[in-house]
Amino acid sequence: MSVTLYEMAGANDLRFSPYCWRARMALAHKGITPERVGVRYTEKELIAFSGQGKVPILVDGDRAISDSWFIACHLEASYPDAPSLFGNAVGRGLSLYINTWADTRLNPLLMRLVLRDLVQRVDPVDREYFQETRLQRLGTTFEALDAQHDALLQKLREELAPMAQMLKQQFWFGGEGPTYADYIVFGTLLWARLASDEDLLDGQNEVRDWFAQLLELHDGLARNVTG
Amino acid sequence: MSVTLYEMAGANDLRFSPYCWRARMALAHKGITPERVGVRYTEKELIAFSGQGKVPILVDGDRAISDSWFIACHLEASYPDAPSLFGNAVGRGLSLYINTWADTRLNPLLMRLVLRDLVQRVDPVDREYFQETRLQRLGTTFEALDAQHDALLQKLREELAPMAQMLKQQFWFGGEGPTYADYIVFGTLLWARLASDEDLLDGQNEVRDWFAQLLELHDGLARNVTG
Repeated sequence: MSVTLYEMAGANDLRFSPYCWRARMALAHKGITPERVGVRYTEKELIAFSGQGKVPILVDGDRAISDSWFIACHLEASYPDAPSLFGNAVGRGLSLYINTWADTRLNPLLMRLVLRDLVQRVDPVDREYFQETRLQRLGTTFEALDAQHDALLQKLREELAPMAQMLKQQFWFGGEGPTYADYIVFGTLLWARLASDEDLLDGQNEVRDWFAQLLELHDGLARNVTG
Repeated sequence: MSVTLYEMAGANDLRFSPYCWRARMALAHKGITPERVGVRYTEKELIAFSGQGKVPILVDGDRAISDSWFIACHLEASYPDAPSLFGNAVGRGLSLYINTWADTRLNPLLMRLVLRDLVQRVDPVDREYFQETRLQRLGTTFEALDAQHDALLQKLREELAPMAQMLKQQFWFGGEGPTYADYIVFGTLLWARLASDEDLLDGQNEVRDWFAQLLELHDGLARNVTG
C-alpha cells in the first residue's frame, strides 16, 4: 500500500517544518519511504480531505492521520516489527513529555530567534500571511526581537542545558539508540537551522555532536536538505 | 538482606530532601521498606563509609550506592520481578532527561522560591552553614529573592507548562502508571511543599491533581510527613 506524507513547502520547495521532520524521521526509522507532497500555506485545498488545515498529514492506505504525534503513534502501532519509536508504553508516555516541551517551550523560543530569516525561506506567495500571523501570535515586532537577540540566545542555552547534561551520560534521549524523542527535538533544531544561517548552537558542544549524529541517520536523510 | 536508606534530616527530624524522596518512592515502588537513618549536614561522619559526602545512600546487603539516579538504576537491575521503574532501556534513557531537567532547572528555581522558609526547617545545628552555602551558591540575598518572588512564581508556571500540557493527555509521565520519572519530579515538588507553607502550585490544576495522586501512592507514603 502506498504511503504519502503531506509536508509544508517553502520557497524553492524547501521543506522546513519541524513537525513534518518529526514524521519524516519516524517514517525512515520504520523503514518506510513515503511519497511526499508539498503544501503551501495558501494551498489548504490540497489537504481539505483530512478534515483539518495543518500538515503533516500521513495517508497510509485508506487512513489519513494528521498531527505529528498521532502519526508517530500510528506508525508504532501499525509497524510493530520495524524498530520501535518508543521502546514501550512507558517510553511513549515519556516521549509525549518531550513533545509538549518542544512544542510549548523550545519551538516558540526558536521562532523568536529565526523568524526574521525564516520569512525569507517561506514561499513568496505565503510570505505576507506568514509574517503577519507569526508576529501577531508572538505579540512582537522584528525590532523588538532584534533587541532581544542575545538574551534569547542565552535563554536557548539554558533551555537546552538539561539535554546537554543528559548527553554527557548517554548519546540519545532513549539511551542506547535513536528513538522518536530524538526526532522531536531534532525536528525543531533542524527547522531553526534551515530557517537561519546563524549558528544557534555555538558553544553547545554536546547538543551539536548529537545533532550531527542525527544528520547522518537513515542514510543522511536530513544532511543535504535544499530548497 | 537488610536495606538501609540514609536520608537528610532537618529540624524535628523532618526528611525533606528531594533526592531522598526519589529514593524512598523508588524503594516503595519495588515493595521494599528500608531501615532509615537521618543525617544532618554536620554529621558527615555517619556516611563516611560511602566514600563521599552526600545523601541519599542506599545500603543493600553488602553494597552501598550513592546518588538517587544510581540508586534507582540499582533497584531496577536488582529487583527485576518487582514493578518496573523505567519500563525498559528507552524509558530509563528518557527518565535520565527528566532527572537532569529537575536537577538543573526545577530544583534551582524552587530553591529561590523556598529558601527563606526552608532555612527554618533545617536542623538548628545546620542552619547557619546551610543558609550561607545556599545563598552563596545562588549568588543572591534574601532581599533580592523576595523582590523576585512573583516573577519566580511566573517562571515556575512556565517551567511546568509542558508537564501540565502532557497531563491533559495522560495521568503519569510514563503514560498508564507511575514510574520513576514521576518520583523525580514529585520529590522536587514535595521538597518545596515541606519547605514552605506557600501554595506554589496555586492555579496549576493539572500538576496539583497529579501531585495529589502521588501523595496517595504506596499507602500514602508521602501524605503525612511530619518532622
